[in-house]
Amino acid sequence: MSEAATLTRKADFPGLVTPEGEVWHYLDTAASAQKPQAVIDAMSRALGKDYATVHRGVYGRSAQMTLGYEAARRRAADFIGAKSENEVVFVRGATEAINLVAATWGMTRIGEGDRIILSTLEHHSNIVPWQMLAERTGAEIEVCPLTPDGQIDLGALEAMLTPRTKLVSLAHVSNVLGSILDARKAADLAHSVGAKILLDGCQAAPRMTLDMEALDCDFYAFSGHKLYGPTGIGVLWARSELLEHMPPYQGGGAMIDKVAFDGTTYAPPPQRFEAGTPMITEAIALHAAIDYVDALGPDRLFEHENRLAATLRTELRKLNAVTLFGPEESAGIVSFALEGVHPHDLGTILDEENVAIRAGHHCAQPLMEHLGVPATARASFGLYSDESDIDALMRGIERTRRIFG
Amino acid sequence: MSEAATLTRKADFPGLVTPEGEVWHYLDTAASAQKPQAVIDAMSRALGKDYATVHRGVYGRSAQMTLGYEAARRRAADFIGAKSENEVVFVRGATEAINLVAATWGMTRIGEGDRIILSTLEHHSNIVPWQMLAERTGAEIEVCPLTPDGQIDLGALEAMLTPRTKLVSLAHVSNVLGSILDARKAADLAHSVGAKILLDGCQAAPRMTLDMEALDCDFYAFSGHKLYGPTGIGVLWARSELLEHMPPYQGGGAMIDKVAFDGTTYAPPPQRFEAGTPMITEAIALHAAIDYVDALGPDRLFEHENRLAATLRTELRKLNAVTLFGPEESAGIVSFALEGVHPHDLGTILDEENVAIRAGHHCAQPLMEHLGVPATARASFGLYSDESDIDALMRGIERTRRIFG
Repeated sequence: MSEAATLTRKADFPGLVTPEGEVWHYLDTAASAQKPQAVIDAMSRALGKDYATVHRGVYGRSAQMTLGYEAARRRAADFIGAKSENEVVFVRGATEAINLVAATWGMTRIGEGDRIILSTLEHHSNIVPWQMLAERTGAEIEVCPLTPDGQIDLGALEAMLTPRTKLVSLAHVSNVLGSILDARKAADLAHSVGAKILLDGCQAAPRMTLDMEALDCDFYAFSGHKLYGPTGIGVLWARSELLEHMPPYQGGGAMIDKVAFDGTTYAPPPQRFEAGTPMITEAIALHAAIDYVDALGPDRLFEHENRLAATLRTELRKLNAVTLFGPEESAGIVSFALEGVHPHDLGTILDEENVAIRAGHHCAQPLMEHLGVPATARASFGLYSDESDIDALMRGIERTRRIFG
Repeated sequence: MSEAATLTRKADFPGLVTPEGEVWHYLDTAASAQKPQAVIDAMSRALGKDYATVHRGVYGRSAQMTLGYEAARRRAADFIGAKSENEVVFVRGATEAINLVAATWGMTRIGEGDRIILSTLEHHSNIVPWQMLAERTGAEIEVCPLTPDGQIDLGALEAMLTPRTKLVSLAHVSNVLGSILDARKAADLAHSVGAKILLDGCQAAPRMTLDMEALDCDFYAFSGHKLYGPTGIGVLWARSELLEHMPPYQGGGAMIDKVAFDGTTYAPPPQRFEAGTPMITEAIALHAAIDYVDALGPDRLFEHENRLAATLRTELRKLNAVTLFGPEESAGIVSFALEGVHPHDLGTILDEENVAIRAGHHCAQPLMEHLGVPATARASFGLYSDESDIDALMRGIERTRRIFG
């Protein structure tokens, strides 16, 4: 058995079984990952025998939960190579992380005529918050084009940068094409004109080793539910010196120093950005998810899914009836079109075969526009995927071709 | 056995037991409620064998989860007597709900010189968002005083209202004093000058029957974790005609109609206010919590906790060494001071006796200032509370008095 094959731990994931007890070939991990039992158990304990709220409790169990919540923050910081846990803000997910940066850093640091550079392949969550900011501030959004094989064109980015560029915000890994950004090079380019760089790490965090220092970025966002953790939680990482100077996002309990009607003062980061009762049990379950992923090793996850994506591309090519989108080198995500079959029809027929793919615009309408299609079919792998999932997908595609043939 | 006594269902709550297997006398339900096993089981199923993301999935399980998520919205709408599920926006909690209203309705409807009326007893989550809005818009915050026994003084409110008043935002039940607002009267007063009214329903939602139509308010906010549900979810209810005209809060996936770099259009409410992957499993577990609470009957919950609060006030009074804060008629929350003992010391000693109370400012520093104390001790009841919890608390107080005597 190859090392990569040992990653395939379907038995740990109760979601990978159909109600009839059959194997569910889940190829939609880029939308959301299934959860290992260890995560579900951590959630049950936290909601059950361990439950109490965090902060300010004078009784032992509340102090324990506070320790658990802060241990989750430290674990997330370690996992991504942050300098300090104070650089980790717990948010609902990557979408909230990006909105938070736009509404706080953006509203105080970006003004009329300033430029924000995005790319053609961004997820809506890395487009709409900046459009809203641009509308409020009079800043302008510029769109970095892609190379012919669907990677963000860093040569083009370099040519677009000017001293008016205040922010470059890019997907670390494309959720549609699997394209992997040379993030360090993008960061160096952004910094060369004094701009900051935000990386949308939703697809990278579950698939590769992250090291904030090596990436040298300024903001990094990812969602827990894509990292085999629960819904309702994600991480915004930002450099301490940026967080320090950012105004609060939401106001309420836990983010204050002192509240008075004649003037309120705020807590230091990260608490300043976590108003109200936080996602306590979600943080604790995310900790369990990170432990699970880290024990397997993000480098091995990357190799495993990269190899599965390459295998699938090879198999699809053999059909002579498939358009493949995106670069050959993919972080476990393959978008394609089957000749004469709408992606939704393919998805529906595959569902009958216990194969789940995604069909649609993948929250990336500008990329669809660029590709000249209304939708793609997308198969995305996770740590529990293996060749049997590819075999099932290929059998389903063959059946679909017979039906539509 | 009295009808109220039958509410005491400690066995349904795995959190009400200490690690040593002893009864935990949990009197901090106003901070966060323990969860019945039915809620924990719903969460486990949703994260496990039922898991998939919502929206746009072409496979059956994703469609099922979408139905489950929307069923939770309908259940929440029914529970509070909303006209339509489209009036229910899922948020992280009440804090986010209030921030959302301030940042969307507030930023478009409140201008320089406009007045926002709060009260002395508000939770920080119903103060700080309005201070942030006032700072941005030049609006002014006015503070409605309390009656001597700690209720919001509606006579004073009436005298404060002018055509410049755009919003009245009040706690339906005080989290410190248990004071119950005559919400309908407050709404009528606000409407008499054309102002809107927001009710912070965090403490009311778990303790009394809610009927949005009867209350005739404009915005209503509450948190799931205080309603025996999970962390990370809450509800903003607002009249349809208000939601329709509110701009989006966070931008991203799921809240859009069409995204393009030359212009993005937004989805109708409630989706417009739910950017990104939502709190899917939290919504499903909240549904289970509402089912649990509704089966017992909010009216009975109110009687049950009201009676326990009255009993505790009587017992505390007998000590002749206790200051009681707040009105006699309380929705299950009792704040007090024990002569010569700091609330934190009391809380710490009670913890040794398996009794959990809260000691502190309860995220209501202006109220502490008004009461002239840095902190209070607070015992708050839930549906699982009973006389044995009061007995344990009183034994712990006696012991504390001996130690400090």
